[in-house]
Amino acid sequence: MNADDVVTAADVRADRDRLGDVVHRTPLDTSTTLAERSGAAAVGLKLENVQRTGSFKIRGAYNRMAQLAPDERERGVITASAGNHAQGVALAGDLLGVETTVVVPEVTPAAKVEATRGYGAEVVVEGDIYERSYEHALELAEREGLTFVHPFDDAAVIAGQGTVGLEIVEAFPDPDTVLVSVGGGGLISGIATALKARDPDVRVVGVQPEGAAHAKPSLEAREIRELPGVDTVAEGIADTRLLEKTFAVMSERVDDVVAVSDRELAVAVTVLAERAKTVAEAAGAAPVAALLSGAVDVRGERVAAVVSGGNVNLSEHAELTRTGLHELDRYAEARLALDGWPTALGRVAEVVEARGAELDAAERARRTAGDDPNRTPLSVGIEGAGAEHLREVLAALDARDGVAVVSSTLAR
Amino acid sequence: MNADDVVTAADVRADRDRLGDVVHRTPLDTSTTLAERSGAAAVGLKLENVQRTGSFKIRGAYNRMAQLAPDERERGVITASAGNHAQGVALAGDLLGVETTVVVPEVTPAAKVEATRGYGAEVVVEGDIYERSYEHALELAEREGLTFVHPFDDAAVIAGQGTVGLEIVEAFPDPDTVLVSVGGGGLISGIATALKARDPDVRVVGVQPEGAAHAKPSLEAREIRELPGVDTVAEGIADTRLLEKTFAVMSERVDDVVAVSDRELAVAVTVLAERAKTVAEAAGAAPVAALLSGAVDVRGERVAAVVSGGNVNLSEHAELTRTGLHELDRYAEARLALDGWPTALGRVAEVVEARGAELDAAERARRTAGDDPNRTPLSVGIEGAGAEHLREVLAALDARDGVAVVSSTLAR
Repeated sequence: MNADDVVTAADVRADRDRLGDVVHRTPLDTSTTLAERSGAAAVGLKLENVQRTGSFKIRGAYNRMAQLAPDERERGVITASAGNHAQGVALAGDLLGVETTVVVPEVTPAAKVEATRGYGAEVVVEGDIYERSYEHALELAEREGLTFVHPFDDAAVIAGQGTVGLEIVEAFPDPDTVLVSVGGGGLISGIATALKARDPDVRVVGVQPEGAAHAKPSLEAREIRELPGVDTVAEGIADTRLLEKTFAVMSERVDDVVAVSDRELAVAVTVLAERAKTVAEAAGAAPVAALLSGAVDVRGERVAAVVSGGNVNLSEHAELTRTGLHELDRYAEARLALDGWPTALGRVAEVVEARGAELDAAERARRTAGDDPNRTPLSVGIEGAGAEHLREVLAALDARDGVAVVSSTLAR
Repeated sequence: MNADDVVTAADVRADRDRLGDVVHRTPLDTSTTLAERSGAAAVGLKLENVQRTGSFKIRGAYNRMAQLAPDERERGVITASAGNHAQGVALAGDLLGVETTVVVPEVTPAAKVEATRGYGAEVVVEGDIYERSYEHALELAEREGLTFVHPFDDAAVIAGQGTVGLEIVEAFPDPDTVLVSVGGGGLISGIATALKARDPDVRVVGVQPEGAAHAKPSLEAREIRELPGVDTVAEGIADTRLLEKTFAVMSERVDDVVAVSDRELAVAVTVLAERAKTVAEAAGAAPVAALLSGAVDVRGERVAAVVSGGNVNLSEHAELTRTGLHELDRYAEARLALDGWPTALGRVAEVVEARGAELDAAERARRTAGDDPNRTPLSVGIEGAGAEHLREVLAALDARDGVAVVSSTLAR
């Protein structure tokens, strides 16, 4: 199968017209911070996390469903998804007046089920893992004459996602490199198709988590390789393999695929929140992780990075940014020993505040081996401006009467 | 003093040209969620939190400093600010080649000091509270011949902030109501000046925290009223009074000022993060709080809300969204009594996950009065889809062998 057999740039342009005002033309935000930290000449962030339903998935789903034959439309569609594709299909159905059924695995977060139902989809809970939900959806499709809308291995879906590429170059002309997250490969296939037709020299690079890095081995082997399993915080791109259409398109139109660690993903989510003021899910932050980690060399280049989704619950986002601050040496947890409880506690608060740091947590800790029985153990969490600043704060604490720093995460 | 003596729409338009490409033309994001929840026909969010330096303040500071006389430029400027204005002045100085000095109070977060220094300003730490820093800055200005750049009571600063208004109507034509946070009143004075000249019928409404609600009493009394003190989570707008210029402009051009509680601010920060995927500081979320709380009636209207800033440290943002989730009945803390530790712990995790909720925290708690000595107390934090869902999860926990729910925050 050749890439052109799957999808062409003309398909993407036609889909652009079809999508019209249904989807948001999302903002492209330029980031001085990311340019400085990566050595790029300029970095543009394509914010698909503020797309309707919180990710780019509505583009492909709507494009696919808008092209259904009248009788297919009449009977309705079905898909299997625990995540962003479910919401994309549900909203597209709502907008087009097509009945939608979404099969979700048993452990799907209630908030995602509610969001999908909120767009009018019928949600069927079936299967302990995604593969079972997928099989069940195919069975229901067969039995009830529903059209199955695949999350990525579908020409119309790929073409719909490609409209992201057209919007990128309109807002951020002549990029040298475009970075895109890769799960099943639908988004990058569409974007690469749109961009390579305009400028064969643009470099399109995929980014995967180390724990689900199947695309590069497949492209190198020139055949689809499947991982036995995945292990990553980036649920949205935790796929085990490409499928035929995305493999065919990526083989011809994607220049490289790089991998980033989960820690690098957490740092990217953190930097996006702190500097770009935007909430990204881990999967959506992968291109930024590649920029910050140096997984791809972009020195002197104009780089566009797609922030593909922002559907993350806020507790999880807070955990990711906590990890990110730790990784950036902006947060330290320390165990103190206090002589004179609770007077010394007041001194701890004073010292931290006077040094301009934030005392995020303070609790009397359980005693452990080695603790002086005449001192009270205290656990603290401190946010500061950087490693040097946090070391100063800890040194100031240690120098204070009645306060001793026993250990800290900075000492790692 | 009349408003026109201070600033006119022509001033704002001239400043627009002066600001040119120096400041970002920030995105205006339409929010279906906020329209639904407030009953508005449409809601547009003007995202000044993604402005350079993380707030609108660069507009006024740059505009003021670009108009310095050659000898003033030569000698440099000074200001006093612990927050966004400091960064605005510092960056404006960097861009214009003007030396800047910023006096900050002793307790200023190190991260803000670093950011201000990062733009090339000299930072002087002086004063235990802001008023002392302010006095010190005036003294230094006098002694060293520096020009003092006031954070809001300055015609050129007000006119610069007014460019936000021009951008709003270009991206979101014919708003019925525009909502703007009010601290000292610089931003709303500029916006009201720009908008009322185009359309006298547009309603411009200010929003203040209940703990710093000085503007409405002043406008009603037709003279400036000063609060004895402030008490609010919204540091960026924790002012005690208007000053002459902002009072004069607001008296003629602002239709109303409403107040929101700190809890409503936390909910607004949460909804902005979860639905608009944007990180706002509490002060910047005040207009959204007014929308969600019903403090202003916008039924059937086209409403623009300015999200004026996003400079909040991430630990604080996580705390705000935790409070917001609690307020929205999306988060519950519960105390459980376990029969058979740690076997029952595994059951707790199973039940929460199977119900599609997120077990955000789980720790063995200290024993307290009334605890059964033959049970192990466990504190848990659970994020769910809503009150009904969380009640279901707690009921399912209580029904499980060996697990009893002793109390929860939902029972409030």
